Amino acid sequence: MDLRPTYIIGAGIVKYGKWKNMTSREAALLAGKLAIESAEISPRDIEIGFVTNVFGFAENQAHFGPVVATGLGIKDVSMTTVENACASGSVAIREAYLSVAAGQADVAIAVGAERMNAVDTITANTYMSYGSDFVVEGGSGATFIGLYASMMTRYMHEYGAPREVFAKVAVKNHNNALHNPAAMFHKKITVEDALKSPVIAWPIRLFDCSPITDGAAAVIVASDDFIKKEGIDEKIRILVSVKAGGTSALQDREHLPTIRAARIAADKAFKIAHLERKDIDFAEVHDCFTIAEIVAMEDIGFYKKGEGWKAVMEGETEIGGKIPINPSGGLKAKGHPVGATGIGMAEEVFEQLLGEAGKRQVEGAEIALTHNVGATGGTVVVNIYKRER
Amino acid sequence: MDLRPTYIIGAGIVKYGKWKNMTSREAALLAGKLAIESAEISPRDIEIGFVTNVFGFAENQAHFGPVVATGLGIKDVSMTTVENACASGSVAIREAYLSVAAGQADVAIAVGAERMNAVDTITANTYMSYGSDFVVEGGSGATFIGLYASMMTRYMHEYGAPREVFAKVAVKNHNNALHNPAAMFHKKITVEDALKSPVIAWPIRLFDCSPITDGAAAVIVASDDFIKKEGIDEKIRILVSVKAGGTSALQDREHLPTIRAARIAADKAFKIAHLERKDIDFAEVHDCFTIAEIVAMEDIGFYKKGEGWKAVMEGETEIGGKIPINPSGGLKAKGHPVGATGIGMAEEVFEQLLGEAGKRQVEGAEIALTHNVGATGGTVVVNIYKRER
Repeated sequence: MDLRPTYIIGAGIVKYGKWKNMTSREAALLAGKLAIESAEISPRDIEIGFVTNVFGFAENQAHFGPVVATGLGIKDVSMTTVENACASGSVAIREAYLSVAAGQADVAIAVGAERMNAVDTITANTYMSYGSDFVVEGGSGATFIGLYASMMTRYMHEYGAPREVFAKVAVKNHNNALHNPAAMFHKKITVEDALKSPVIAWPIRLFDCSPITDGAAAVIVASDDFIKKEGIDEKIRILVSVKAGGTSALQDREHLPTIRAARIAADKAFKIAHLERKDIDFAEVHDCFTIAEIVAMEDIGFYKKGEGWKAVMEGETEIGGKIPINPSGGLKAKGHPVGATGIGMAEEVFEQLLGEAGKRQVEGAEIALTHNVGATGGTVVVNIYKRER
Repeated sequence: MDLRPTYIIGAGIVKYGKWKNMTSREAALLAGKLAIESAEISPRDIEIGFVTNVFGFAENQAHFGPVVATGLGIKDVSMTTVENACASGSVAIREAYLSVAAGQADVAIAVGAERMNAVDTITANTYMSYGSDFVVEGGSGATFIGLYASMMTRYMHEYGAPREVFAKVAVKNHNNALHNPAAMFHKKITVEDALKSPVIAWPIRLFDCSPITDGAAAVIVASDDFIKKEGIDEKIRILVSVKAGGTSALQDREHLPTIRAARIAADKAFKIAHLERKDIDFAEVHDCFTIAEIVAMEDIGFYKKGEGWKAVMEGETEIGGKIPINPSGGLKAKGHPVGATGIGMAEEVFEQLLGEAGKRQVEGAEIALTHNVGATGGTVVVNIYKRER
């Protein structure tokens, strides 16, 4: 069954950081309104919505859809919460995309909002660990930092990657975030800073970790029919959105530094989109830890397994390099508000492909990929977007 | 865009009640296996899944999809959590239905599991209140019992329904549950019992309330292509699945004892299915409180607003009556394990339409409707099913 051409026509983002006074509910509405404004539509054009608010119970809220719909003034529109841990945002986009592509709606919204700082850091990490296989991981004290540390240790052992390479990922992402007004951190760091930062779970140091972040983002997804009817120019086609699953626990994987679900999703996405890896102008990938960025580059297929680190050493993933990775600053420096993260990636793609990303602009970018991981790879979503004129 | 014919080909349920030793994770896998067994397929036929586990954080789990997929031995299959409070189960079925109907998969699974008794009753009610608009409802002490009490008070005031009618709803549902092996309660009650039970939030008494329930259910959804290929006989067509939204807070409704989202969803469902109300042989509706069953009968359109209570008095909603409501025992007596509830409704429909419901069988039932409400009506899902031979 053919799906019809489907586009992102508007996007909004609420500055990532540590909010003093804003709730995730308020931030979701702000992001939604910015996206509606950006698309130049009326809220009443929206026919369906998908929302995500993984830390909702930290704010005593667990039925986020009607809260967002009511707040946007479209109370009859049904909005559903979707969750796949840190991949929730991209899943929301995928469901919005499918609703439109399959003809269930002409206009859909995807909204993600988190206020992770509604609870203290220890509690936030405890809640995060519920995204792991708690029976064998979180419950035994294995936080995600520890789990990714296992992946990093194995990667270094198997491929001889020097410790410095991970610091370089952090430095690049902090450099990119300097030019992203929505980023949490606007702080230049050096390789030395990163290498001297405190160990969190060896070999992962503080500057290898994405921060606990408050953040919100929203995108408007529309059909080709709607776009033609409204004469909309600023549109980014969603070429494909693929979701794949992996084992719940890291211990059940065949190879620690390979996320099999990412390989499956990427292979399928490129096949459906009839594209090669070299066609991608930049990618926003899930660098929850610096090791994750390198693993992602390899899983997507930009580099062979075990060779991604060499590309980092040679600067190939910087803006202006062979394949810019995370021009937004990534989860590391832009921030990682769990459920909002994937939607924030799409917001970055929207700005970049329209050529509106200012000093972090990837020149001439026409096709972009996003890669969003839930937990250690229990879920992966790969989306490919293309500017159409 | 036309959707292709889509069916439920298997269903499983884990006895509702207060489990001593089973986690929701174990129950989800058991329900999934029973559904797979019932459909006579291999787990490997499943291509996508939707799960729900609203009380997951009470068991420290928040990434349920990979847990279920891994446990069923199909780790590469992506499963996503969907949530709309107490309507989550029907939303999971709707997403599974749409995935198949739109050609994204030939076989999908929907699984819901809850262990609400993982926490004490007060905590469970607190968690439930997160499904309300917590800013103006739960946070002010308005639990769902209180909110539905407001609906009931207004209903009695406006339509002159006697207190006894609500007791009769409870008695009927307890009678039906006597013959449902999966029901939580196998306990006959009298109108007098119900009228004498303690007041919880006036005028709602204990026997007007659905219980805090552990429960799990699963259904297998498949395309017509798959059914033909496999030569499957026992199939129930999903004629339509419609989801609608309403205001987050009860206070913003135009009329307290009308759930507008239910009317919208039902009107749309009947229109799409080209059916009249009289074509429905029985319905499973969301009787979280006895008042909710009467409101549902009217919102769906079986009775005019304000007249549903008369039908109850005359026994029209009993098995063998004009339009049997909740032959399973309903949320009241079968039980209400939040995220599993809507999937349990579909399981009942599957048994009934195949004529396998034993002593609670609605004779000759060919077409059935399910009605599942999230919160006080922020979300409503109406599904219509038909036996096809």
